[in-house]
Amino acid sequence: MNTLATELNSQLEGTIAYRLLSNLGKRLYFPKGIIAQSGEAKKFAHKANATIGMAYDGGRPLILSTIAEGMPTLSAVEAVTYAPTAGVDTARQAWKDGIIKKNPSLAGASISLPVVVPGLTAGISYIADLFLDEGDEILVSDPCWDNYSLIFADRRGATVIETAFFKDGPGLDLEGIQKAVEKQAQKGSLRLILNFPNNPSGYSPTHAEAEALITMIKDIANAGTDVLVITDDAYFGLAYESDIYPESLFGRLAKLHEKVLAVKIDGPTKEDYVWGLRMGFVTFGSAGLNETHYDALIKKLMGTIRSSVSCSNTPAQYLMLKTINDSRSEEEKKRYKEILHKRYQIVKTLVQTHQHHPVLQALPFNSGYFMSFRCKGVSPETLRQTLLKDHGIGTIALGSQYLRIAFSSVEAEHISYVYETLFKVAEDLAQQR
Amino acid sequence: MNTLATELNSQLEGTIAYRLLSNLGKRLYFPKGIIAQSGEAKKFAHKANATIGMAYDGGRPLILSTIAEGMPTLSAVEAVTYAPTAGVDTARQAWKDGIIKKNPSLAGASISLPVVVPGLTAGISYIADLFLDEGDEILVSDPCWDNYSLIFADRRGATVIETAFFKDGPGLDLEGIQKAVEKQAQKGSLRLILNFPNNPSGYSPTHAEAEALITMIKDIANAGTDVLVITDDAYFGLAYESDIYPESLFGRLAKLHEKVLAVKIDGPTKEDYVWGLRMGFVTFGSAGLNETHYDALIKKLMGTIRSSVSCSNTPAQYLMLKTINDSRSEEEKKRYKEILHKRYQIVKTLVQTHQHHPVLQALPFNSGYFMSFRCKGVSPETLRQTLLKDHGIGTIALGSQYLRIAFSSVEAEHISYVYETLFKVAEDLAQQR
Repeated sequence: MNTLATELNSQLEGTIAYRLLSNLGKRLYFPKGIIAQSGEAKKFAHKANATIGMAYDGGRPLILSTIAEGMPTLSAVEAVTYAPTAGVDTARQAWKDGIIKKNPSLAGASISLPVVVPGLTAGISYIADLFLDEGDEILVSDPCWDNYSLIFADRRGATVIETAFFKDGPGLDLEGIQKAVEKQAQKGSLRLILNFPNNPSGYSPTHAEAEALITMIKDIANAGTDVLVITDDAYFGLAYESDIYPESLFGRLAKLHEKVLAVKIDGPTKEDYVWGLRMGFVTFGSAGLNETHYDALIKKLMGTIRSSVSCSNTPAQYLMLKTINDSRSEEEKKRYKEILHKRYQIVKTLVQTHQHHPVLQALPFNSGYFMSFRCKGVSPETLRQTLLKDHGIGTIALGSQYLRIAFSSVEAEHISYVYETLFKVAEDLAQQR
Repeated sequence: MNTLATELNSQLEGTIAYRLLSNLGKRLYFPKGIIAQSGEAKKFAHKANATIGMAYDGGRPLILSTIAEGMPTLSAVEAVTYAPTAGVDTARQAWKDGIIKKNPSLAGASISLPVVVPGLTAGISYIADLFLDEGDEILVSDPCWDNYSLIFADRRGATVIETAFFKDGPGLDLEGIQKAVEKQAQKGSLRLILNFPNNPSGYSPTHAEAEALITMIKDIANAGTDVLVITDDAYFGLAYESDIYPESLFGRLAKLHEKVLAVKIDGPTKEDYVWGLRMGFVTFGSAGLNETHYDALIKKLMGTIRSSVSCSNTPAQYLMLKTINDSRSEEEKKRYKEILHKRYQIVKTLVQTHQHHPVLQALPFNSGYFMSFRCKGVSPETLRQTLLKDHGIGTIALGSQYLRIAFSSVEAEHISYVYETLFKVAEDLAQQR
């Protein structure tokens, strides 16, 4: 093993983070190579900096006119130079300030500086690199985003344990979740990912449910089990009902217990409506970790970044900073959320008037971009194909049970047509069987 | 194993690509999940598309003013929507056209459509995912880019075999390379990465050397060995001498032999001076592969993309297309190359006047961003530290032997100071020992 990796491991020894590291995670480190030496040179090379693999002239990076004119609010440095492996410092600090502001329950917690990654998927994949070995198990909600299984199982060789998060009630099946969590805990450690607002169900926990989830995890830790809990906060902020727990669970989890390592994955892609800019953040929080531990963990994460994409897109980071500093953004985001909220309300009304539909049973939903139906007596794939080919309506079939509707991308005036067609086609198909 | 993975594997069976796949590579596939269904919906969902996890209004993606004004030459769709997993079709096709134009030797070869990845590092890392298992060996040049070992060894668990590419002659140590290649071949298969212009040596093969390398690989294949050869063409196009082989070796390798799988990793980051946009391309070429095989390989690669970053940055792809279509770009790129060429000539003269320097022996260099010295009687790290702390000159120490100078980022008028100081400090340090 590389001596730098050994060094980082010894800094983490005795902590929850060390106990949960995968073999790859143990192996990773941030080399003292080109990038680290280049960082040093940035500080001290006052005469000439011959470290950088970029081309400068007249003190400014060479830049094509098309690029300079294509991003006129950015300087050449902001547009085309390499970003540091862990991201632009000001962007990281601004995002951390935002996390603390949006999650008052973080008061009294110490969390790491967020690390920039190329999208939330990358954040999840990197955390899987660090903390999942072949044969390890990770608990996910059923239904869940279909990419979890590709990342955790196919890429990392771990086993994905799907747990029904919804039964027939109006919210989470807390009893079922508790059982699944306890079963995992008996194996020595618990790894789980919580995604609220959930993709594909569009559900976020109520205050009471959030408390129950937090207590559940605290009890597991109190009983001596190490817990890795990843909060996938992709759709953070899009809550449409007043009884929803308004923060990320990360806020409480980050200071819950020495045996709980919380990892927050979030970013501007949905929050700031910049999906294709591919920018996310990874933040660590645990009652069992101090600054030295966070530094070591961040260097591990930088090793995964350096060995996979080297660094994240630079202009995305500076553009995000500009959206944060632009006084118009908050108002625009409110307006956009209102657009989605209005669609949600139309969908909610349509679903309620069909709540005893023989074929389509809506999963609880109250937030985010999506809602999903459980299909009885018809395969979601058949339903999807028919809707698409015969009616020009695109939906997503998930596994053998679920159909997902992204109301985020359907104009308000089309929603009624979409749902009425959906209910009708589902009934027809079920009757033909 | 997932049935889609099994399907892709059976499409590749009997080919060089299949024989070289890693366990992860065998496991990977591109799911028929959200992304694939969303692609189908794009074609057929004429009434309403409720598949997409983006927020649309009035037929256009929601976009913050800061972003719209920050990238005014791009439409909202080009600026913020998700790109397809394998990249924007027009960008892929345009890059393929460019590869063929820049490499006339590709005539008669069939190559795959290039796949967009978030930077050249990502391309290398993804190919390692697909083709390197724990315990496999890969041959790299000594010296080589320091990230190879982090990617191949620490991330993938493979063994990196460093082979001296330079002895005392003016060019490549072809005899030494041949020996190393033959030794690898005896183990059943040969995996190697060729990086020209080389980072850190700044060397590209001459016509004769290129022919020798190609013959070497052909002989290995003729003798029955499967060969994976990755051409890392990061610095393509920056040749400063007339005897340099002007193409990528990929052109010839892509049609060389059924037992040779060539993979080209390139992109606009250096060629178009947009380092921080993080955009690269992966292209497959082999005399042993047809369109069906390329499709299967691309789907495998899409599985690695989907499970790691989901997709690449969108605006980078559209901005690259604009640079290709902008009539000013060619002229500007010529001018920028001329700037680097001029620096190269100053460096060359300085190095020639010190060619019998007792401490610093320049490796052959004729292209790219860099040149490197082999240090005798002084540790490159000590030399680097002294140059940085006492003289404000930033350089890169690589391992126990090499010091790299990026003349790409030093203004012409500072080069002489940098090199004179360098020679002086190295001599002083060697004498103090």
